[in-house]
Amino acid sequence: MTSEEQTHAPLKPSPAAGTLWCPEAGRPRPLQSPGLRRVSGRHVGRGGVARVRRPSRWRRSRSPRGARRGRCSPTSTTSPWRWATGARAGRGTPPTSSSSSAPARSAAPSPWPRACATACVSCAASACGTQVPPRPDERPPRPDKTRPDKPLPFPRADESPTAPRSPSPQGPLSPPDVQFLASVLPPDTEPAFFDHLRALDCSGVTLRALPEGSLAFPGVPLLQVSGPLLVVQLLETPLLCLVSYASLIATNAARLRLIAGPEKRLLEMGLRRAQGPDGGLTASTYSYLGGFDASSNMLAGQLRGVPVAGTLAHSFITSFSGTEVSPDPMLAPAAGPGPRVDLAACVEAWLERVCVHLGLGVHEPHRGERVAFVAYALAFPQAFYGLLDTYSVQRSGLPNFLAVALALGQLGYQAVGVRLDSGDLLQQAQEIRGVFRTIAAQFQVPWLESVPIAVSNNIDEEELARLAQEGSEVNVIGIGTNVVTCPRQPSLGCVYKLVSVGGQPRMKLTEDPEKQTLPGSKAAFRLLGSDGSLLLDVLQLAEEPPPQAGQELRVWPRGARESCTVRPAHVEPLLRLWVQQGQLCEPLPSLAESRALAQLSLRCLSPAHRWLEQPALYQVALSEKLQALVDRLTAGGAL
Amino acid sequence: MTSEEQTHAPLKPSPAAGTLWCPEAGRPRPLQSPGLRRVSGRHVGRGGVARVRRPSRWRRSRSPRGARRGRCSPTSTTSPWRWATGARAGRGTPPTSSSSSAPARSAAPSPWPRACATACVSCAASACGTQVPPRPDERPPRPDKTRPDKPLPFPRADESPTAPRSPSPQGPLSPPDVQFLASVLPPDTEPAFFDHLRALDCSGVTLRALPEGSLAFPGVPLLQVSGPLLVVQLLETPLLCLVSYASLIATNAARLRLIAGPEKRLLEMGLRRAQGPDGGLTASTYSYLGGFDASSNMLAGQLRGVPVAGTLAHSFITSFSGTEVSPDPMLAPAAGPGPRVDLAACVEAWLERVCVHLGLGVHEPHRGERVAFVAYALAFPQAFYGLLDTYSVQRSGLPNFLAVALALGQLGYQAVGVRLDSGDLLQQAQEIRGVFRTIAAQFQVPWLESVPIAVSNNIDEEELARLAQEGSEVNVIGIGTNVVTCPRQPSLGCVYKLVSVGGQPRMKLTEDPEKQTLPGSKAAFRLLGSDGSLLLDVLQLAEEPPPQAGQELRVWPRGARESCTVRPAHVEPLLRLWVQQGQLCEPLPSLAESRALAQLSLRCLSPAHRWLEQPALYQVALSEKLQALVDRLTAGGAL
Repeated sequence: MTSEEQTHAPLKPSPAAGTLWCPEAGRPRPLQSPGLRRVSGRHVGRGGVARVRRPSRWRRSRSPRGARRGRCSPTSTTSPWRWATGARAGRGTPPTSSSSSAPARSAAPSPWPRACATACVSCAASACGTQVPPRPDERPPRPDKTRPDKPLPFPRADESPTAPRSPSPQGPLSPPDVQFLASVLPPDTEPAFFDHLRALDCSGVTLRALPEGSLAFPGVPLLQVSGPLLVVQLLETPLLCLVSYASLIATNAARLRLIAGPEKRLLEMGLRRAQGPDGGLTASTYSYLGGFDASSNMLAGQLRGVPVAGTLAHSFITSFSGTEVSPDPMLAPAAGPGPRVDLAACVEAWLERVCVHLGLGVHEPHRGERVAFVAYALAFPQAFYGLLDTYSVQRSGLPNFLAVALALGQLGYQAVGVRLDSGDLLQQAQEIRGVFRTIAAQFQVPWLESVPIAVSNNIDEEELARLAQEGSEVNVIGIGTNVVTCPRQPSLGCVYKLVSVGGQPRMKLTEDPEKQTLPGSKAAFRLLGSDGSLLLDVLQLAEEPPPQAGQELRVWPRGARESCTVRPAHVEPLLRLWVQQGQLCEPLPSLAESRALAQLSLRCLSPAHRWLEQPALYQVALSEKLQALVDRLTAGGAL
Repeated sequence: MTSEEQTHAPLKPSPAAGTLWCPEAGRPRPLQSPGLRRVSGRHVGRGGVARVRRPSRWRRSRSPRGARRGRCSPTSTTSPWRWATGARAGRGTPPTSSSSSAPARSAAPSPWPRACATACVSCAASACGTQVPPRPDERPPRPDKTRPDKPLPFPRADESPTAPRSPSPQGPLSPPDVQFLASVLPPDTEPAFFDHLRALDCSGVTLRALPEGSLAFPGVPLLQVSGPLLVVQLLETPLLCLVSYASLIATNAARLRLIAGPEKRLLEMGLRRAQGPDGGLTASTYSYLGGFDASSNMLAGQLRGVPVAGTLAHSFITSFSGTEVSPDPMLAPAAGPGPRVDLAACVEAWLERVCVHLGLGVHEPHRGERVAFVAYALAFPQAFYGLLDTYSVQRSGLPNFLAVALALGQLGYQAVGVRLDSGDLLQQAQEIRGVFRTIAAQFQVPWLESVPIAVSNNIDEEELARLAQEGSEVNVIGIGTNVVTCPRQPSLGCVYKLVSVGGQPRMKLTEDPEKQTLPGSKAAFRLLGSDGSLLLDVLQLAEEPPPQAGQELRVWPRGARESCTVRPAHVEPLLRLWVQQGQLCEPLPSLAESRALAQLSLRCLSPAHRWLEQPALYQVALSEKLQALVDRLTAGGAL
């Protein structure tokens, strides 16, 4: 349950930032974890937070993809389809592996061996998904003007709202950074250690990852990082910080989309509840990837190409007392150069007719609210929106809105919506739709019937389900706090673990079986049935030949005591090579591409895997060789 | 339940970023809100996130404080001490007010009236606290080198990890910002509106706020912003984004400190679970303010002066296989130039004695772990730390640690601690302390008895209470996820509401009484008893004379149907003037000062107000004039 954020330069090109993520059914849940799933967010490249540095040797180059795609002929599979993960959701679990090279003996000024090593980011869960078809009224994602046609291997200063504090051309740690470290480490620390830190760079780092928007199941690595041990270790916290929240928010957004169904328009409105503007930027970006339609965060639109949307504020309404007089109340017809009409006067005339229809006194609707609506309509006649609940929906907001909407309608403009922000949203929407229908019939303005009704007000999963029920007249749903803070499970327990040093597998045993790691440099594959359905994911040692479509494979479901066989019709490698020896290998996908992948991925899941509560288990299994390695290291106390 | 983060330039000087915050007992709680309280974080000035801009007219100047401090003679008070807030915790509630000036009629290209206006950030809750005495082993907060002696009125590029993306000397919105807005607003929007936006600046903004580290009770404004209506409205989301999370995290940290008691050392270790590195920076800063002792976030140490602390990683241990040979295993004695000793050989000799004592075979402890410990000890002989649970605490980690610690002890070095990260932490700590004692006696190394035992592993409030119980041998407690994400209540419902326009009060009524606002420009005072105890906070209209110590005052507890009288011994104004007409009025306090204020504030609370569950109610009341205004506006449909 996490999703990746943005930061430190070496992470920029890592693409597994947002990964669709699910817990396992039938397993202990972390605190307040009712089954949140995880959905991929955006690749780190679109991030941009603190201390973005530019390692001198990270240069862009083309290189082949990490592994070829194996799509073969259909076959049958054997089960058992029970879950077998060794970790509970929300807590770290076994990561994976990767390559390495140098021997582990040197006179390095660091206490670490100078070997090459591999570490992996992984998590515990089981994926779910939902598909959100493109909706016709959605503003298409804007081109991300800050991103070059060919992505750079490191963040550009102008790409992020938070440019590098003191970019160092030398390496990930600037001289002031090292100076600070020297001030907090014991005073007898060997001075050469700090020289060593100053000289670090990421030229030896290789990174494989799931593409952003992928579905991730428990135990499958999201990222694999190989390189000099010390550098790989320095990347741990930045990578986790980037990956976790982005995937969490994307997953949370996908859950909310699942609940809302494909028809409702979902707006993310949570910037004020984020952990600062950068957290908000990540939330807006990855909730869009997870299935939301737009965000109220203008910066996310400007920097990430997220469609932006909003309504108007109560303070706009209350800023008018009713004594204001517009300097120019005249409005020209929508169709073109016709005679201009005094909108304010026209509204007053319509108000009388509306009040008669609604059985209200003409003085009941709040004058200040109406003057505010008129001011808004004069400024944005083609985008008139009514916020109805500042004083009273039935006695003020609704009649005032109708008077202005009908006056605008007379000039050929159509109001674009109303919003409710308090009270029983579902019931009020039904009542308002009813009024729209009778007014539409009464005054022969058929478009009024279908003016979208937007609602907001601390909407959570339960309220969303209510608002999305059959027959609901709600069209647009704004969610803030409950998408941004993921209150049902506010963190995703991604972990980053050392799995191989100098080519030798490493394993942490600990007192707690849930915190044991999966040793060795590994590859991951998704096995599919002949109809494209997902069968299971298999982890194996990197040196093993990939599974072949049509061939029976014996695997050990994680945590199970018995092996089983499976015969996939298709085999898909999961991890892609993105950075090799510090060089970006292929262009990073755009936000639109990652969003499309996320929605496509979710569509491939069976309905039972998409259940919000107690979803069916999706299996991740180990190859026989990997299982044997785990058994050997466990028996030998990790040797 | 929120806390303030960092951002946008105009917010830099606003000091209410972190405010100690409590919900009200006996009121409905938001989802998963078991009574989180709120503690002030740091002033916004230490922020530094996205889109920090430098308004050209924000200049520093000295000006008198907002209100004088009234401390008078003791008196008695009358109650009733029941809570009376109109909003539930976690949701927005009535804010306060402030001044204004210009008339509300103009030909502004914006649909908003061109009046001056006031808005307030407020929240719903009741404060709690605990006092954390300085501990002798705590590294003193480092001077914040990035902050000048006299604070600047706007963020400096080098003060924040995230410098301005495109600082504009012209105003809060840069030309590209306005260009983006033009691209998403309706195409027929009046072009002059965008010229108007480009010309905006913060020179007309005045800001009053609680100092950082203050206790905040429901309904009392944290911030009051006055200035041109459009500018004040543009500040809404940035201000909320800054204030909420910082106060949430500070409050959460104060709760955890309350549970831990004053003796345990609390480390914040949650960077990897934050909403990106900036969220992590805020979390580290404000958890320190709330009562933590240090953070593992080096950047927080470097940029904010938060004390940093940490142990070592499992990956460091697993990176050693045991075949490594140190290039130089010789270590000189701590005392000075004595003969150097082969530490590795010495450790092997000690291991035999330790294993005999513990009844273990000498080959049971993991060799790689021991080699890792030796490498660490050679690099940091004065700061040797043991991470015990990589393979097995009892059979490997503990004997290996003891062998190295005893070998170091022979040279005059004392190990500084051990850490446990899995299993039953409390029980293991007891067992380890027992072993320390017997080994200390056996080998006559008395210092070993009191080597600090640190624990970590998803520690939440319940587990913390267990670890802090009487007789616990745990000394240091690392908390990550559960301090950073505040899982018991992941957001604090601060709201920012328009309360006055052109000198006229404004009030939002809505369908939901909880969302009604408190109208008018207001002042806030804390009334104290003769012993310095807190009696109640009173809100009144800005034009009313302040309450006088020793004089009886009739007030209306919020939401109550009857008034009551109170006779304070002391009266303290709560809101201070920080920015007047765009100019900073007084230097912002340092982090250390704000932390001291927070701890002092918490100490002033009665024990019943500090209860973690169902704390006693603290009363916030309205003056008779303010209550009359509320009644008048409510009866008149907000007129």
